[in-house]
Amino acid sequence: MPATPSPGRVGDVRRQNLALVLAGIQRNGGATRAQLAAESGLTKASVSSLVTDLIESGLVRERSVTRDGERGRPGTGLVLNPARGALAVEINVDYLAVGVLDFTGELTFHETVERHNRGSRPSDILPLLVAMAQRAATEASGVGVELLGGELTVPGLVDTDRNVVLAAPNLGWADVGLSDELPKLLPEAPFGVTLSNEANSAALAELWFGHGADHGASDRFRDFLYISGEVGVGGGLIIDSQLFSGPQGHAGEIGHVVVHPDGPLCACGGHGCLESFAGQEAIYSAAGIDQGSTSRQMDQLLRRIADGDGRAVSAVEQAGHYLGIAVASTARVANISAVVLGGHFAALEEWIAPALRRSLDHHAPGLIPEGNLLFSGLGQTGALRGAAATSVRRILNQAYELIA
Amino acid sequence: MPATPSPGRVGDVRRQNLALVLAGIQRNGGATRAQLAAESGLTKASVSSLVTDLIESGLVRERSVTRDGERGRPGTGLVLNPARGALAVEINVDYLAVGVLDFTGELTFHETVERHNRGSRPSDILPLLVAMAQRAATEASGVGVELLGGELTVPGLVDTDRNVVLAAPNLGWADVGLSDELPKLLPEAPFGVTLSNEANSAALAELWFGHGADHGASDRFRDFLYISGEVGVGGGLIIDSQLFSGPQGHAGEIGHVVVHPDGPLCACGGHGCLESFAGQEAIYSAAGIDQGSTSRQMDQLLRRIADGDGRAVSAVEQAGHYLGIAVASTARVANISAVVLGGHFAALEEWIAPALRRSLDHHAPGLIPEGNLLFSGLGQTGALRGAAATSVRRILNQAYELIA
Repeated sequence: MPATPSPGRVGDVRRQNLALVLAGIQRNGGATRAQLAAESGLTKASVSSLVTDLIESGLVRERSVTRDGERGRPGTGLVLNPARGALAVEINVDYLAVGVLDFTGELTFHETVERHNRGSRPSDILPLLVAMAQRAATEASGVGVELLGGELTVPGLVDTDRNVVLAAPNLGWADVGLSDELPKLLPEAPFGVTLSNEANSAALAELWFGHGADHGASDRFRDFLYISGEVGVGGGLIIDSQLFSGPQGHAGEIGHVVVHPDGPLCACGGHGCLESFAGQEAIYSAAGIDQGSTSRQMDQLLRRIADGDGRAVSAVEQAGHYLGIAVASTARVANISAVVLGGHFAALEEWIAPALRRSLDHHAPGLIPEGNLLFSGLGQTGALRGAAATSVRRILNQAYELIA
Repeated sequence: MPATPSPGRVGDVRRQNLALVLAGIQRNGGATRAQLAAESGLTKASVSSLVTDLIESGLVRERSVTRDGERGRPGTGLVLNPARGALAVEINVDYLAVGVLDFTGELTFHETVERHNRGSRPSDILPLLVAMAQRAATEASGVGVELLGGELTVPGLVDTDRNVVLAAPNLGWADVGLSDELPKLLPEAPFGVTLSNEANSAALAELWFGHGADHGASDRFRDFLYISGEVGVGGGLIIDSQLFSGPQGHAGEIGHVVVHPDGPLCACGGHGCLESFAGQEAIYSAAGIDQGSTSRQMDQLLRRIADGDGRAVSAVEQAGHYLGIAVASTARVANISAVVLGGHFAALEEWIAPALRRSLDHHAPGLIPEGNLLFSGLGQTGALRGAAATSVRRILNQAYELIA
């Protein structure tokens, strides 16, 4: 284990230069000392000295590289150390999950446990999460990955400065402080555990590992709306390749955009919210599917649709219709012209997409061009990957804490 | 007249120091050289030299000051020169307007001419604007104000880099390039004429001269939504005391947030937009008021409401109801908890406010706290003041162009 960090050991200039060097290694998935010097404008001696520190800290390691098409002798490349990683822990309404992401961005382990968490007290859930986190840390250790920090991501509004879940109506949580609980998830990690919103984590995953990464060079995927389809419907706005979180950190809440003036009561206390028409429970209920585990409910829904069950088909189409209204409104407010849908929306793409497209064409023609309406390929692990990758970025930003 | 500027005359460091000194003078509504030196960290000699240049350029002038409660001899204060100013020109669907704002923020002249501009060609309107701008410049000159630049503000989406009105559906304009036309509004002004969106200009006016200025110290008025009520309904988002304009510069378009899934066709081509329920024409039509000049229509509406005409009252209440839905959706997306309404919404405050409050309490209770729902006191001149003040800021930011 690295020593417990004492912030402030390294001077400001050196911190800045460390950040430059780490960014250079990250950006290219590896780089030689010479490349780092050329890119950063630092002297080769400075780079060498910083790299020595980074290798000693365990954040970076050397490997032989010959790049495709590159001439000359193979140089000694520097890469982020795949033997270091971050933990992600997710609470959702119908499951708990943990994941381990190494510094190269590989999800080396993940586990999802179905569980009805609606109305569960934090004190019921947290011991389960601690046990799952321990298993994840053991698994990580088994493949040689040491966890330096982590992030807990939840389906609700969070105050990331104070580690408080302000409101997670589908869990029934309000003003739940977690400052004492977060460290228990990863007691020995030098960079601790932070808190985030699930849809925001999934939006960042889409930026870094999903369509944002596929379209590396495309402008439209610098700016997009991610819509998370779970029991709740969440959203995350990516603007200029950053999470746009708004004045209090809660921007992008598309699940509570009003899509019908006479709509039903929502868990949030409002009426007519998108979530009431397009959340998982809303769809299952409209399709006439009984309560049960959500994975079984999804299997049933897909089977009924395959059988041509009109009620099931129209439940999904209704969700697409109201999604179109909420996307139109959100895109007008945030000036967004690209959308990625995840969670159950991605599982139902074949039936959601046409209804959503029709609704968009009716309510806001031209706003989201054909080809800018995409579904996530990240599956169930989006939020986990986003939360863990956020933690990795935070660790690298604070790398100076590990440098003597 | 100052000489036509040739950018790049002044070195970068001096530019930065000029900006520091001008910001100090602006912030306090005046300052002495000693105060400027203390605040900026520049030497007194540097400040004196910069101030000499600023006085020679005409941007700044001296005056004797003794501040209230300040001890000692009166110092020689420096203020922005009230004999310099900027022009604002506004095209709206039912009027044209011009205004002159001097550097101290006083609107020294404005003129509004009612005119039905729907379907007017740019070539019909622009000569009228040129004539109005000439009158304004003459009026300004008469009271000793020289206009250094200006801004044209329009009810539509604009590309400010290319000076193009991309879409102003209520005028019937699409892709109207104005690069050749803007200079004609103020042919001799050294800083030229820029283009902006009317609701954004009005939002900035609210920040600088309206509730944002009243609440100088209050956090909530660093972040608010401004809603412009004209024939069209526009919006501007102020986040962290700046206009949040989104990836393409069109954020905050609350007029086209969808408030009813089965709503009517809107001028934008969509359906169910707020504008179709709460724009001026929508209200007059729902109230059964015949077409005519909008000021006469507003008089009629107010008279009928005073007479207890049920149809007039319910037309206004319906607008408030749908405003509540759009505000709820917009606030969820942008994470905003304060709203200012202007234009006809402000004129109808007494009847709009309760209906809007009821709608908000139903659709999103707690989202916009009591006391954070305000109406503009700036009247018809909001957009003009915002556009001119934006121009003044631009001129001061480019002050180095006037320094030899």
